[in-house]
Amino acid sequence: MISFSIDPEGNKYKIPDKDETYIEFKKIKDIIDGEKKNGKKIVVIQGLGFVGAVMATVVADCRVNDTHPYFVIGVDLPIPNSFWKIPVINSGKSPFLAKDPEIEKIFNRTVNEKKNLITTWIPEVYSDADIVIVDINLDVNKTEIGRAENSSVEIKSFENAINIIGKYINTDSLILIETTVPPGTTENIVKPIVEKCFIQRGIDLLKNPPLIAHSYERVMPGDDYVNSIKRMWRTFSATNKEASLKAREFLSNIIDTKTYPPCELRTPTDSELAKILENSYRAMNIAFIYEWTLLAEDIGINLFEVIDSIKVRKGTHDNMMYPGFGVGGYCLTKDPLLAHWASKNIFKREAHLEFSVKSVNVNDLMPHHTFDLLMNGMSNDIKRKKITILGASYRKDVDDTRNSPTITLYDDIKKAGGYPEIHDSYAKIMSQRPDIIINCDINSSLENASAVIFVVKHKEYEELPIEKVISKLRKNGCIIDAFNVLSDDKLAIFKKNGFKVLGVGKGHIKFL
Amino acid sequence: MISFSIDPEGNKYKIPDKDETYIEFKKIKDIIDGEKKNGKKIVVIQGLGFVGAVMATVVADCRVNDTHPYFVIGVDLPIPNSFWKIPVINSGKSPFLAKDPEIEKIFNRTVNEKKNLITTWIPEVYSDADIVIVDINLDVNKTEIGRAENSSVEIKSFENAINIIGKYINTDSLILIETTVPPGTTENIVKPIVEKCFIQRGIDLLKNPPLIAHSYERVMPGDDYVNSIKRMWRTFSATNKEASLKAREFLSNIIDTKTYPPCELRTPTDSELAKILENSYRAMNIAFIYEWTLLAEDIGINLFEVIDSIKVRKGTHDNMMYPGFGVGGYCLTKDPLLAHWASKNIFKREAHLEFSVKSVNVNDLMPHHTFDLLMNGMSNDIKRKKITILGASYRKDVDDTRNSPTITLYDDIKKAGGYPEIHDSYAKIMSQRPDIIINCDINSSLENASAVIFVVKHKEYEELPIEKVISKLRKNGCIIDAFNVLSDDKLAIFKKNGFKVLGVGKGHIKFL
Repeated sequence: MISFSIDPEGNKYKIPDKDETYIEFKKIKDIIDGEKKNGKKIVVIQGLGFVGAVMATVVADCRVNDTHPYFVIGVDLPIPNSFWKIPVINSGKSPFLAKDPEIEKIFNRTVNEKKNLITTWIPEVYSDADIVIVDINLDVNKTEIGRAENSSVEIKSFENAINIIGKYINTDSLILIETTVPPGTTENIVKPIVEKCFIQRGIDLLKNPPLIAHSYERVMPGDDYVNSIKRMWRTFSATNKEASLKAREFLSNIIDTKTYPPCELRTPTDSELAKILENSYRAMNIAFIYEWTLLAEDIGINLFEVIDSIKVRKGTHDNMMYPGFGVGGYCLTKDPLLAHWASKNIFKREAHLEFSVKSVNVNDLMPHHTFDLLMNGMSNDIKRKKITILGASYRKDVDDTRNSPTITLYDDIKKAGGYPEIHDSYAKIMSQRPDIIINCDINSSLENASAVIFVVKHKEYEELPIEKVISKLRKNGCIIDAFNVLSDDKLAIFKKNGFKVLGVGKGHIKFL
Repeated sequence: MISFSIDPEGNKYKIPDKDETYIEFKKIKDIIDGEKKNGKKIVVIQGLGFVGAVMATVVADCRVNDTHPYFVIGVDLPIPNSFWKIPVINSGKSPFLAKDPEIEKIFNRTVNEKKNLITTWIPEVYSDADIVIVDINLDVNKTEIGRAENSSVEIKSFENAINIIGKYINTDSLILIETTVPPGTTENIVKPIVEKCFIQRGIDLLKNPPLIAHSYERVMPGDDYVNSIKRMWRTFSATNKEASLKAREFLSNIIDTKTYPPCELRTPTDSELAKILENSYRAMNIAFIYEWTLLAEDIGINLFEVIDSIKVRKGTHDNMMYPGFGVGGYCLTKDPLLAHWASKNIFKREAHLEFSVKSVNVNDLMPHHTFDLLMNGMSNDIKRKKITILGASYRKDVDDTRNSPTITLYDDIKKAGGYPEIHDSYAKIMSQRPDIIINCDINSSLENASAVIFVVKHKEYEELPIEKVISKLRKNGCIIDAFNVLSDDKLAIFKKNGFKVLGVGKGHIKFL
């Protein structure tokens, strides 16, 4: 049976068979041998997702003493979900849409001009690596929204990926884990797996302990995607001195460590914990503001103004979060759960990070509140009514729909008998939910809608002419501002034109 | 019966009787009349606590166009708890010990040199005020530690205080509430009380609506006590336009509003909510770190280093809190509960700020964890053993013991049959707990102790010579660092000398 992998643009790529794989193997071997003869170090990156793909270009692009020290091979699996990234990157293109203009350039430069980057599905390349960087996903399965404490971590597929590296990697090569993992994973999961592989390969662990380090990135897809890798602080830690030296040298080659000096912690568990705590802190501060959002709405207060008045206290209060629609993306929605899981499964503890896990639940359920506002505005009647959601992505001016809170609102509307219509000009597909169609045409999205819900601060929505919205909507409809997209002036105009207006954290609207 | 009021130094002051009160009344009236003739505006400050007393000096000290526009009268009650402050301030001294050298100067300057500030217990002075500033306490009664949701707010005594003002105040004078109150208090409690008084006084509310504003300070007793009033942002809001103008003018006279421009919010409820949210945010971020503290200890991580590595992210993560011993003081221990109370009692809501209230519980219970470390270090045997707690105050280099977490630890030790000994060189008395004696001599405090617990980062403790501690303690004793007071090097020396060493958030100690 022939199977295919389809990219976001709809292009189909045949998944290679045995013969093609053998040909690829020979081809890649030749390339690597040539690069090694030229004195290049080989860096293999496992996983070509939002971090791995761009990380590959940054490593390939880096210069030390006017030469490029690294030849980079990106590896992903020959399965429908991921194979398409290999031919796309090999053609010199980014597998992801990105607003950062540097993205397009850096893929073209490293693949086509410098010819420092190729991608493949051949696992044997790990045996040629001086450094293997692990950038695969480690997912959390939430069985039920609002019950994150019952989630499971897909540790098996992560273990399998490490096992492949252990089978092939040279004893003096570095394994650098960049994947966000449960604290304790490098020392309690990765190291034992690699050691077991080494023993099976007849390697003396005393002479050749595996060289493993953990270092976390702070990638942010958006305007400054490439710099969010290159010009950003790195925390790292290694399992032994040699691995630490190798990790430090590598990081100082690819990152602007003069401006952003790296921070080495005592153990890889410290580094893993730091990443998780960093994100749990954000998740918790978002969840915290939610209960004040509900209070503000009930008592007629504009919580945005209140928070602005507090944020003047720089250094102690200036990173207070604002009310919002929900939390999406790959990190804040699951990272606290990784610590919860580690606490239970790696460290066998009884206490399980109550605040942090509760934050995930509060944030996951948050879009229900926007649905409640909608039902309030529509007098509980949305049956067979078109309800337009402006925004599929969870983040301003970005196409990223991973764990988008829009999905929860969409399902709520559908369940109540409404006809949800999702618009987004950036995002074309809804991650994890192929059944949800995104309309990229704003006019047809708004046409005849009974309610419009602004859920993300895309510039396009901030600049949307009110007259246009009013002319498209049904009369006496409803405007919900779930993420402070519209000014009071605009909201007042909608109100004057007979629309019911509500907003998350904007209790004062009723007095407009 | 003659009753007395005793100051913290032990001086006794007779509480005045009727005759003395009449003489005082005549005397104060004469003074006020004189000041009015000199063109001074009269500012009366109700409540001479940590805010009111210093606020009184700041107002008296302020200059506008080279003159002092305000004559200030501080008022407190002629009862044992508070009367002593009146003679103390009238002698030109601060009622509180304070590290800020400006405190001593400003009391002497305004009382003795400029003669711009007097204090009294006569309520009739409110009738002469151009501005009355409310700086009385509004306390929360916690019936049980860890069950803050069941607390009650002492709103009755606050209402009584407002009622006295309402009886006397001129219709064109401003009432400025600075007390931290439940959101909604100014509009739903203060305003109706004053209106009722006005009606009883035959005043037409339409012509003379009461002029009320809420503005909150951000006073911080410590090195920079006076500047924490004068040079700090102010948020305010008033019940009507005239009150708003008066409040703005007053604030711009006493505060450096050029550097710290005032922020006017829509309603007094906004301003009240801002203050409470500001403090709840801190309380919650402290509570959040606690569960990570327990994890770090269990898995052998120094959480301080991990948090330092995260704090490099300025603007988003640099106000993450560190692990600690507990939370004391007047604000963070109760402010979230004021919102909880308002939600329930003023706004009749069902949702009651779960995260915020839980934060108070987590923080209140936190000292139990230090007790657990002690019991661990002492192999669960502290019966008839002297356990020295270094620190009565909740804050570094300050004498403030209000709601000090030391009290909880003290009670834990006593309950387990140990002999707790509390040392502090700054704090002389333990607020709310006259039964607890504070030893200000470090030598006798340490002498023959089986364990020493460092609970606050007083400079004296950071600089305490280890040899001295070792020479005083019993052999094989226990050192608990509950607030990151000691360096790893010092902890290692204690360990080498046979002491058991443990620390809050310092799981790595076992590997030292």
